[in-house]
Amino acid sequence: MELKQEKQAYEMPYQLTYYECDDTGHPTMSMMLSMMTMVSDAHCISLGMDTATIQQTGGAWVITEYDGEVAADQPTFGDQVILGTRALAYNRFFALREFWMTDASHEKRYLHLRATFVFMNLEKRRLMSIPKQLIEPFDSPEQKRLPHLANPATIISDDPASKEYQVRYFDIDVNHHVNNARYLDWLLDPLGGEFLRTHRPVSLVIRYQHEVREGATVTSQYQLVEDTGGLSSRHALLVSGQVCATAEIGWHGV
Amino acid sequence: MELKQEKQAYEMPYQLTYYECDDTGHPTMSMMLSMMTMVSDAHCISLGMDTATIQQTGGAWVITEYDGEVAADQPTFGDQVILGTRALAYNRFFALREFWMTDASHEKRYLHLRATFVFMNLEKRRLMSIPKQLIEPFDSPEQKRLPHLANPATIISDDPASKEYQVRYFDIDVNHHVNNARYLDWLLDPLGGEFLRTHRPVSLVIRYQHEVREGATVTSQYQLVEDTGGLSSRHALLVSGQVCATAEIGWHGV
Repeated sequence: MELKQEKQAYEMPYQLTYYECDDTGHPTMSMMLSMMTMVSDAHCISLGMDTATIQQTGGAWVITEYDGEVAADQPTFGDQVILGTRALAYNRFFALREFWMTDASHEKRYLHLRATFVFMNLEKRRLMSIPKQLIEPFDSPEQKRLPHLANPATIISDDPASKEYQVRYFDIDVNHHVNNARYLDWLLDPLGGEFLRTHRPVSLVIRYQHEVREGATVTSQYQLVEDTGGLSSRHALLVSGQVCATAEIGWHGV
Repeated sequence: MELKQEKQAYEMPYQLTYYECDDTGHPTMSMMLSMMTMVSDAHCISLGMDTATIQQTGGAWVITEYDGEVAADQPTFGDQVILGTRALAYNRFFALREFWMTDASHEKRYLHLRATFVFMNLEKRRLMSIPKQLIEPFDSPEQKRLPHLANPATIISDDPASKEYQVRYFDIDVNHHVNNARYLDWLLDPLGGEFLRTHRPVSLVIRYQHEVREGATVTSQYQLVEDTGGLSSRHALLVSGQVCATAEIGWHGV
């Protein structure tokens, strides 16, 4: 297996466990996003930026948006895959990163995403400029204007379908925040087993706007839309009436 | 790294991901039980018994009980560990298996459990005798009487603390059942972040009595008990008044 391990791009082999897969035997979207965070952490560590080095700056990387495609053909638990990431560009406040999951021979691309990262001051809970020592090692180009990722389409309904979720202790990860991959479980669960067993996601746009905190109750709203672009679902996660995340997912029937 | 890979015992190396760990940086009990299922599946596969071979018998292995100890000192995400299992003994209806998680040099044992397995006819939803071709490859001794695992102590209270959980689509795993590791999340979450951040589990007994099904609402009851044996929690998971699982967990303050 040939793996990219250079300044801008990094790949790691990974074997899918059964508990990262759902009822269909394929990895859940939530677990796929967790794997993207894992390879991006591994990329940082490979360039000498471990968790302690990052924490010394008083801040942390936060993902504000994912945008990309999911292949209809997905790997199965036990399969060996390659997780990859590339630092595409950055400016003072934003960094753009590419992610992929392929088969072990790089022939099939199962997942391809772009993500926008910001750097958050953990004490003041607000954006800070990206510390030079945490971005220059990637050797990616500095660009005044970064490309905009797609916007999720908005729910158009006064009374969308919705379901409530309590944030649980085990939704909090080692960064002491609700793991942003968990948002996908809240987004998708209201669609129900019958829909999720007969449809596969083919595209995803998710925008994280406000942090969901421990103890909160999350309202997950959705609307299914069928138009010339095919079948898609539009989603919003709210806490006490405030929109914390919006998303749009494209679907293929199976 | 030397790994046991023989008929009775099997080990595999495993690197802990950040999303298998909680707020404390250590693996969650739910994820540790998932890892035990993973190594037991790998052991079966190493002896030529893959999922398809097992399914041909019309049945599936089901765990009815775990009993064992958790070390106070636990590994952290990114650590390389060894997952191991051994087929201890069996009779017509029951198989007894040992599980462990150690560090890469086999010096520290992080987790040590015994588990009772039965074989379930999937169509009739009842016990069947263990097919010879699925147990003989382990070369473990046949014993008329297997040792009894410990019983979880019962909650003694008319009004125990409790919290409700909806079974979600992503609680269902590739075997089309609620993953039995998920029961641990329901058991532990009601204890709350403050307790879980300041206490580490040191022992676990869990007995699975009835299957929790998709769409169910689970009531998770618990009672904290401090006696000469130290601090422990007693748990029951109920669906529509029926007890589906009971558990007892010993705790050390940190």
